[in-house]
Amino acid sequence: MIHYCCYCHHNNTSMASPPSRSPRLLSLARRAFSSSSSSTQPNAVSLVQGASRGIGLEFVKQLLENNDKGHVIATCRNPNTSTGLLHLKDRFDDCLQILPLDLTIESSIEESALSIKETYGHLNLLINVSGIFSIPGVLQPETTLNKLEKSSLMLAYEVNAVGPILVIKHMWPLLKVGGGIGTERSSAVVASLSSRVASIGNNRLGDWHSYRSSKTALNQLSKTISLEFARKKDPIISILLHPGTVDTDLTKPFQKNIPKEKLLTKEYSVQKLLHIINNVKSQDNGKFFAWDGQEIPW
Amino acid sequence: MIHYCCYCHHNNTSMASPPSRSPRLLSLARRAFSSSSSSTQPNAVSLVQGASRGIGLEFVKQLLENNDKGHVIATCRNPNTSTGLLHLKDRFDDCLQILPLDLTIESSIEESALSIKETYGHLNLLINVSGIFSIPGVLQPETTLNKLEKSSLMLAYEVNAVGPILVIKHMWPLLKVGGGIGTERSSAVVASLSSRVASIGNNRLGDWHSYRSSKTALNQLSKTISLEFARKKDPIISILLHPGTVDTDLTKPFQKNIPKEKLLTKEYSVQKLLHIINNVKSQDNGKFFAWDGQEIPW
Repeated sequence: MIHYCCYCHHNNTSMASPPSRSPRLLSLARRAFSSSSSSTQPNAVSLVQGASRGIGLEFVKQLLENNDKGHVIATCRNPNTSTGLLHLKDRFDDCLQILPLDLTIESSIEESALSIKETYGHLNLLINVSGIFSIPGVLQPETTLNKLEKSSLMLAYEVNAVGPILVIKHMWPLLKVGGGIGTERSSAVVASLSSRVASIGNNRLGDWHSYRSSKTALNQLSKTISLEFARKKDPIISILLHPGTVDTDLTKPFQKNIPKEKLLTKEYSVQKLLHIINNVKSQDNGKFFAWDGQEIPW
Repeated sequence: MIHYCCYCHHNNTSMASPPSRSPRLLSLARRAFSSSSSSTQPNAVSLVQGASRGIGLEFVKQLLENNDKGHVIATCRNPNTSTGLLHLKDRFDDCLQILPLDLTIESSIEESALSIKETYGHLNLLINVSGIFSIPGVLQPETTLNKLEKSSLMLAYEVNAVGPILVIKHMWPLLKVGGGIGTERSSAVVASLSSRVASIGNNRLGDWHSYRSSKTALNQLSKTISLEFARKKDPIISILLHPGTVDTDLTKPFQKNIPKEKLLTKEYSVQKLLHIINNVKSQDNGKFFAWDGQEIPW
């Protein structure tokens, strides 16, 4: 069990202005960490955005069960209704913080960033999990161009592309401060969940216009920010991940068309994705990986 | 000079229900065309969406100046304020129809489709030109993630990705009826203007997040519908075009960074793009071409 460390508050004092990646501030942060923590390294701080259930909840669980990953922040729209998160909170009270965050309300993203800054002062890992594919009566995966609705296209884009990139925008200062400190990596990692169906080059079946195009846009946005991270020598690696077809509520309506051997458990998928995250190298910045480590073409 | 033919109204009568690509209806359409036209083939009908100025206006001009291209429909938000289109209307009164169409208002797309159906009964070419890149005070091409605004991302997506695909949705029945009849092609063509910066694989500079991601999404949507056209054996080829960096109002604020020899005139760019459109083959369906005919990676 890992306990909150008072270094967070020390660090917070020295980071009253927005964190920057300047060597001076990084050095200040490291000194603040080491002077108040019993170890010479601060603990890692990971954020899982979209953690109420399914793959997001599983990420939180595995990060917590792996003690050396330090603190975990789980966000979702309505923390009080996520029985899965509340159960984890019972087991890992000191290591887990649950924050409300609605991807479609930017102020809630800003509030989460401020809260994380005040409590921990840095981030080492941001996993963007939230996404929508199908909402009965609102967003139905399209099976023909005739069924395309403007409202579905806009909603899918807002949640699947715009939301995750705004989370990255607001967590960026914390990731710059965090880098790889407290982890075995040299950089912080931003991992955004995309999907193989976002690949234009691999698109052989068509349909699912709203979901596909929103995730393709997310791929472009993730690639775009990875170039800025590299240009500015930020200690951050941004990657895209395809979790496979995972047995979750999202895929339930479509599982009858999926061969049993191709349907992954969320435990297995997340284990594989965390393996990719924990072993990512600077040359992977901007890339798009499937759960099995294979790169997916754009 | 080409005159409106009464076949359109004959055809319209036989197409009171939404046009379909069934052989029977295609045959009816061909008979209606041939019985009322002096030639055995109806004239081609081309639609340029986003034609008030720049590249769109130049498409209209070149299509009109090339007599064998038949009728041209030009759409823009405010036809009365496009002096370029009004000037062309003076020169080509009988061949040019100007219709109001606002990409962000789906009912205006539907009204245009209905008007084209009633007047011509079919379409052979749809060129989606409209796009936004920079609007002072509203949408500024981003030079860092810090400047990303939700409103800019959503607006660029609405205009650059959602609008063009809704135009294709509503013109689809007319394109199915039209196919290549009245042209030297075997198929109707949908050409949507994208941009090389939409390529994820070619993205080396980053930035311009809103524009880039919206055009990348358009690429995915265009690829997606091309697969449905192929699956249903519709006589339609859908392609994406990069016009090059063209000397228009859109690029004016950025021309100082563009080597003079890389800045194309709109006359030259459109000439090259029409060459691609007029020579497109079924195996090109779904592809993404630069003005010089080179395929651009996703």
